[in-house]
Parts: sequence; C-alpha cells; structure tokens
Amino acid sequence: MNSEPANPPLSSWRDGAPRRAILDFVARVTTAGHPDFVPSADRIAVFDNDGTLWVEQPLPVQAHFVIDRIRALAPQHPEWQGLKPFKAVLDGDLAGVMAVGMDGLTELVMATHAGMSTDAFAGLVRDWIATARHPRFHRPYTDLVYQPMLDVLALLRAHDFKTYIVSAGGVEFMRTFCETLYGVPPEQVIGSSIVTKYVVKDGEPALMREPQLHFFGDKEGKPVAINTHIGRRPIAAFGNSDGDFAMLEWVTRGPRAGFGLIVHHDDADREYAYDRDPGLARLARGLDEGPGRGWTIVHVKDDWDRVFRS
Amino acid sequence: MNSEPANPPLSSWRDGAPRRAILDFVARVTTAGHPDFVPSADRIAVFDNDGTLWVEQPLPVQAHFVIDRIRALAPQHPEWQGLKPFKAVLDGDLAGVMAVGMDGLTELVMATHAGMSTDAFAGLVRDWIATARHPRFHRPYTDLVYQPMLDVLALLRAHDFKTYIVSAGGVEFMRTFCETLYGVPPEQVIGSSIVTKYVVKDGEPALMREPQLHFFGDKEGKPVAINTHIGRRPIAAFGNSDGDFAMLEWVTRGPRAGFGLIVHHDDADREYAYDRDPGLARLARGLDEGPGRGWTIVHVKDDWDRVFRS
Repeated sequence: MNSEPANPPLSSWRDGAPRRAILDFVARVTTAGHPDFVPSADRIAVFDNDGTLWVEQPLPVQAHFVIDRIRALAPQHPEWQGLKPFKAVLDGDLAGVMAVGMDGLTELVMATHAGMSTDAFAGLVRDWIATARHPRFHRPYTDLVYQPMLDVLALLRAHDFKTYIVSAGGVEFMRTFCETLYGVPPEQVIGSSIVTKYVVKDGEPALMREPQLHFFGDKEGKPVAINTHIGRRPIAAFGNSDGDFAMLEWVTRGPRAGFGLIVHHDDADREYAYDRDPGLARLARGLDEGPGRGWTIVHVKDDWDRVFRS
Repeated sequence: MNSEPANPPLSSWRDGAPRRAILDFVARVTTAGHPDFVPSADRIAVFDNDGTLWVEQPLPVQAHFVIDRIRALAPQHPEWQGLKPFKAVLDGDLAGVMAVGMDGLTELVMATHAGMSTDAFAGLVRDWIATARHPRFHRPYTDLVYQPMLDVLALLRAHDFKTYIVSAGGVEFMRTFCETLYGVPPEQVIGSSIVTKYVVKDGEPALMREPQLHFFGDKEGKPVAINTHIGRRPIAAFGNSDGDFAMLEWVTRGPRAGFGLIVHHDDADREYAYDRDPGLARLARGLDEGPGRGWTIVHVKDDWDRVFRS
C-alpha cells in the first residue's frame, strides 16, 4: 500500500537504538491491527528546523542573514554606528550580538525583515541564500542539511505521514527554501511571524511586513502554534534543544503512541558539540528528562554515519 | 489522470453563466499546455464559511452557540442580568445582541469560548451541534449546508485542488465539524482565534483558552491569514459578503489566472434574501465592483437547482 523509499530506510544512520526506535515506531503506527495503529490522516510529524534539520552553529542561519543585511544597509543608516545591537553587528562582534538579549535581537530583525512586501522579502532571502557561505565549512547553508534527518522525512512520507516544520525561525524566511530543501510545502511550515498588513496601492494589493512581532514560536509557543495551524496533536516530534521540550512533551503525552526524538550534537570534528551552555540552542532538560519520558536521544558521533546531505 | 466525481459535475447547479464559468476555469488551469495551466501543488482554493458553505441567517451559527451557552451558564452568573450584552441574550432580544457592537460581542464570545482547554471546548461544540436546531428550518445546522457548494468542493478536489476554509468564525469552533461536513481537514481550516496557553498540571499538558483575542480573520485579515497559514496565493476564492472582498481581490489580482465567486442570497422562499443592509453579512461593494473585476456572481434563486444538501 505504501511506496517504500528506493534505498534501505535510514541508510545514513548507523545501526543502533535510535535507528531501531524510529523503524519500530513507524512499523507500529502503520500496521493495521496493531494496538498503536494510527489512521493516515492523523499521521502528523513535526520537526524543529535549526539544529534539527540543518546546522545552527556558530549562529542560526537566519542570524547570518540579519548580519549580512545590516551590513548591506549600513551606508543608508549612519545612526546605526551609535546604536548598540547594530554597532556589534557592524564591528563583527558576534558574541556581542548574541548578548544584546531579546529586545536587541528584535530590533535587528525588524530593521531587516520589515518595511517591505512579502514578495520583496522572499526575493531578498532567495538571493541571499543562493550566495551566502557558512563561515567554517565554506559551503552554502543549503548543503548543511542533515542527511539522516532527510532519511527520516522520506521514511515518514513513504508511510503517509504529513511532515511539518515547527520552528522559532521566521516563517517567511523558511518558506523560501523548505520545499526545495526538505520537500515540505509552504503550508506545512510553521514559525515566528511579524504583523502583516493588506494594502492596496493603485489597485494592486500587497502584503506589507510591519515592524511588530505577531507570534514567537519557541518553547511553549510550539504546541500553541501546532494547535493554531494544524488543529490536531501530532504523533511524532523531532527537536534538538530545550526550545523543543514543550513540543515533544505535547506530542508524547497524548492519547496515542507518540514518538519524541532529540538530536544531541556531540561531534565537534564533523559538525559541532554543544548542549548545556546557556543560549538559544541550550539542551539540558531534554537530556535530563528525555530518557525517562521514553524519548530517543540521538548522539551524532555514534548514530549518524554521515552528517550532511550528499 | 484526475478521478472525476461519480455524478456529472455541479449537478445541483442550473446551467447558466456561473456554472459554466466554474467549469471553464477548472478546465483551463488543469489542462496541460493551456496558457492558464497551474501545477497541482499551486491549486489552492479558499472558501468563506458562513453564508458561502452553510446558512448564516437569522444569525451566524456560532452566534446561536454563544446564545445557548449564555443561557446554560446564566444560573451561575446572576451578575449577567445587569450587563447589557448578556441581558439582551437572556431576554431573547436578538436585534439587541447584534446591536451591542464589536466590544459587546467580544465579551459574549470570551464568556463562552474561554477559560477551558481546547479539548473541553471542542467537546462542548460537538455536543451542541449534534442537538441544536435552526429556528426556521427546524433541522440541524449541519443539514443547512449548500449542496451546490459541496459540488464545487468535490469538483475542485477531483482536479487536485487543496480546499481551505478561510472564515471570520472561530477556528476551533469550525474544526469540530468541517472534516465531516465539507471534507476539509482541521489543518485546512483558517479562522479567528483567541490566545491559547500551554499549561502543564500534574505532568499533564493542556492548551488553555484565554479570554483575549489573538487574531480576527475578517476583511483584510483574510489575505493576511492566508499568507500566515498557506504561504502562497490561492487561485480561487469563494465568498458571499464584503468581508470576503479583500480575499477575492488578493486571489484575482495575482500573477496567475484567479477565479473569484460571490454567492448573492436572493431567494427568500427557499432560504434568505439579503445584501446591502449594514451588518456582518453586508454585500454591496462586491455587487458593485465584482462584475467589473471578472468575478462570478451567483444568484441563488436562478443558479441553484437545490439549496441545501440532500
């Protein structure tokens, strides 16, 4: 009934507990007559993006976009030299940028993400992502997608799962590449958003992006966003930081067999090693409580045969 | 390639310009090689709900739910006898209810829609809709769905369209019945929403509905909501009031061949006749400007062979 992927499933995973847990879960929920069987309409899986589907170090990809845009726009904004978050960016002080806190980051985001139409913004992102290079790997960010997670997406879709991205990243930023990169269409991408206004000028309608936060989709915002957009509880959730904790909790405490998986980045050679340090990518509670909650913890070093997509 | 509906398409429509315009549009956008051809991933159609897919007179169905809930809860709220919008409801003064304005209506909605979990709310709606009866037709509201519009939904889906509901109604109210009634799954229902909060109590997570508006999806809010949820511009839009004007404008002023249709309720015998009177259901600008914009105006009296679903 289901079309199987051409290759053996999860072929870029090493054999081990995480790979077997994923295969076992998929078998249980898709085998008619099994007590954990779930009809295909309810087979919904949600994935965090940064650090779960692609690289998020040394900074989330969207932060690199912000930095490059600030630099590009700086000549038109001499006043930025005297404003803290902008000055840190222009000085190349990345630690300083991340230390400006939520208000400072919001200021940077608004200066680079608002004041234009949705079409114009998507064009900027597309142009940027086609040329930007990762500072360490010197490759396009779109190359730095985790092949093992692409395998998971393919396996789930081959078993009639609908796959969603649920990220704290900007939804209109992500939608420019998620379909090509992950096979996830725009309507299955959920993220943070700013206020958008419908404006008609000379008979031509446009959606204008306003410098005001509409929704921030991190932490407890993730189950809330899932409810707003999907309207039913997914049965599988994939994340990598404590920003995903509530989403995994929501998915795995439902009436159905729910699957939770956390990617623990512990491979400094092939990628990055990080977990308990404070910051957006912090992973502590998930490591402490995940196993007791039946969540699968992936160790990149041991469990992934390959890291980036081929 | 496409599976055709079992019956001739649009069989509850009388032959005439609107029926032919729908069939012609579907043929153009789904015929490979035609200049208006649209790949199936971009075949997105949006439908208003109240007055477009089901009856909205003498009051929108959700307003009847509010009234019945206020009555049911009144014994626990003696203070309501002194509060204007509540008193109008308890006195059965429907004109008074509709005259309280947006603030008064919001008060009534919050008193009946908030302060409980999403699951508890969905349960209340399901119980109500199973027993409530329309005041004139004495039938369940779920019987008062327009068969010709069900025909349109079936025709579009048979041609690989993804069909969405985009309504000013409460999204969690609608999601309890849209799948059964229209074949539209929860994730394709877009509407107004209140703030929802993720709360964990004794280890059990729940989404709690707070008495605060999150998004109101009428008028210019419709294209905004389409952008937030779908992230691409639909190619067909169906509405019945000026609350749908911006949505039709957005859809029909895109780079692609866009189809706009307005249902004009002019059949007081079989259903209701209404248009230019002020109120939520007002249709004036759409009648004045629609034809010049190439929109199809449906006259229920002439164009629909049958009104309600069989």
